Amino acid sequence: MTVRAYGAYAADKPLESLIITRRAPGPQDVRIDIAYCGVCHSDLHQVRAEWAGTQWPCVPGHEIVGRISAVGSQVTGFHEGDLVGVGCIVDSCRHCVECDDDLENYCDHMVGTYNGPTLDAPGHTLGGYSQQIVVHQRYALRIRHPEDQLAAVAPLLCAGITTYSPLKHWKAGPGKKVGIVGIGGLGHMGVKLAHAMGAHVVAFTTSESKREEAKALGADEVVVSRNADEMAAHAKSFDLIVNTVAVPHDLDAFLVLLKRDGTMTLVGAPATPHVSPNVFNLIMKRRAIAGSMIGGIAETQEMLDFCADHGIVADIEMIRAEEINTAYERMLKGDVKYRFVIDNASLGA
Amino acid sequence: MTVRAYGAYAADKPLESLIITRRAPGPQDVRIDIAYCGVCHSDLHQVRAEWAGTQWPCVPGHEIVGRISAVGSQVTGFHEGDLVGVGCIVDSCRHCVECDDDLENYCDHMVGTYNGPTLDAPGHTLGGYSQQIVVHQRYALRIRHPEDQLAAVAPLLCAGITTYSPLKHWKAGPGKKVGIVGIGGLGHMGVKLAHAMGAHVVAFTTSESKREEAKALGADEVVVSRNADEMAAHAKSFDLIVNTVAVPHDLDAFLVLLKRDGTMTLVGAPATPHVSPNVFNLIMKRRAIAGSMIGGIAETQEMLDFCADHGIVADIEMIRAEEINTAYERMLKGDVKYRFVIDNASLGA
Repeated sequence: MTVRAYGAYAADKPLESLIITRRAPGPQDVRIDIAYCGVCHSDLHQVRAEWAGTQWPCVPGHEIVGRISAVGSQVTGFHEGDLVGVGCIVDSCRHCVECDDDLENYCDHMVGTYNGPTLDAPGHTLGGYSQQIVVHQRYALRIRHPEDQLAAVAPLLCAGITTYSPLKHWKAGPGKKVGIVGIGGLGHMGVKLAHAMGAHVVAFTTSESKREEAKALGADEVVVSRNADEMAAHAKSFDLIVNTVAVPHDLDAFLVLLKRDGTMTLVGAPATPHVSPNVFNLIMKRRAIAGSMIGGIAETQEMLDFCADHGIVADIEMIRAEEINTAYERMLKGDVKYRFVIDNASLGA
Repeated sequence: MTVRAYGAYAADKPLESLIITRRAPGPQDVRIDIAYCGVCHSDLHQVRAEWAGTQWPCVPGHEIVGRISAVGSQVTGFHEGDLVGVGCIVDSCRHCVECDDDLENYCDHMVGTYNGPTLDAPGHTLGGYSQQIVVHQRYALRIRHPEDQLAAVAPLLCAGITTYSPLKHWKAGPGKKVGIVGIGGLGHMGVKLAHAMGAHVVAFTTSESKREEAKALGADEVVVSRNADEMAAHAKSFDLIVNTVAVPHDLDAFLVLLKRDGTMTLVGAPATPHVSPNVFNLIMKRRAIAGSMIGGIAETQEMLDFCADHGIVADIEMIRAEEINTAYERMLKGDVKYRFVIDNASLGA
């Protein structure tokens, strides 16, 4: 069947209204009427071909929430009318060690929600800037938040899990000092989540203007990273720093803030490399620089449940689909607090 | 008292014979008649002022073995005549969290065996290229190897513990695939130790000529890292890679060989930076780049006992003290298998 969507036909073309097809739900599939879709920086990278391999047309969107409108004959646990989400993953090999460990996000054959390989037309997956999506039940997620929060739940599906997963993996919690670098779409979720986990949270921002906002999000302390004295006061004190900044910057400035055996986890990859970090800063305190990519399906469900239990949603600005190109420009300037979410009803009937 | 030593008065001067003073043993001190001292690449970096802060005269040497010739009144557990070693550490604050955790190597006030701060003349510590050394008993290590292996034990005090510590910390052992990059002073110990721990050991070398040697050291497989096909065959398969290479090189070539959650630990710091690693290689499989610096005193003792139990010593080439300048030149060319050790008897009477 055909549905309305928003996407682009080329890297140098704006996104526009288009018609795409969705497969009929198979026995294990659920069909979701998409209510809202968050706007991730990855969407922009992919649709503008700043990352390799973009296929056209490109319909971005992997922070999808909505209501199930059809279920396949073998679907268990989901019913028509359920509120559900779809994140960055719509398929994986289902039999490798990563899939067996509930870490489909690290499966070599993980299929992204857009721009991934599929037998469906047109041969690559099309994302959530659309009226409907059909996914295997394994990759659908239950939403327990109140329905009036649904739009603000959408960003949890990528920004939420991308910060939740490293916070859990590196054991953020009571007694731990956790830094969140960059207070944007990912970082504002990181602050909320780390705070809810019980960690002592320090937000790092380059903007003096974000100091009070970061505290309101749940930061115990805020450091303006351009201020050397403020930075020095935190030397050798962090158990974990989750660095959400995807533009090249000085990693050493944060590495020296880690205590012995501390880890800085990068969740954003810059288009051009960071300045090479100083190896002495790793060696002297057995520190590590690690990476983390979204999270597995089970962990994403865990995160959604955690957020429902703690009343956590994203801070969002709602837009209509036709505002997406303007929204991208504003996102590039950091002019959003903190996540755009498309009201998919604006795609039309 | 005065003893003979070998050291340098300036960065551009060769090492020469000189006379230094050692303090009289205090109540907690042991005096060691040094039998042998290993030659570490750090010695060369420091004495040539390639690292900052070299103080003169500089007497290098932190792979020290010998026999106790005097003990202070409050020394327990060491006696005159005992075979002992001194590694890279001769003092630390003894009350910080690192010291309390038996990780004096990460103490902010760790005092190196040479070029460290001390009240002893001439105001900085002087190392093992000398006839005697006096150290607090806390930093002396028992040697259980047969005496005829004593010279080959010396390199365990730095090269041994520097590789043992990350292998233990990142849990090398049965069922784990461990890579050792660089088959030199550190790397040849890493291969022996990882093999004895029961890991599947893969040695990485740039030299085809080292293939058979590395197997003889205990490597299950040897990869010539210039061979792209050989490298590719090991993609995504390592739990741990200990990288001993201290010259700038392509870290990504090894990062992609780590499986999910794998760590590459750097134990050498190059004088100029590595090419900045690709953040995607960290993110895609939750990999980490870490550093590790020697090991604590308790762990060094554990390593010495492990080596005694497993019959492990270094492969060495013995030299006389007056050959040290030539040995440095040969070390720079990689022309040593695998560690020079000074016969301190050659310092004279």
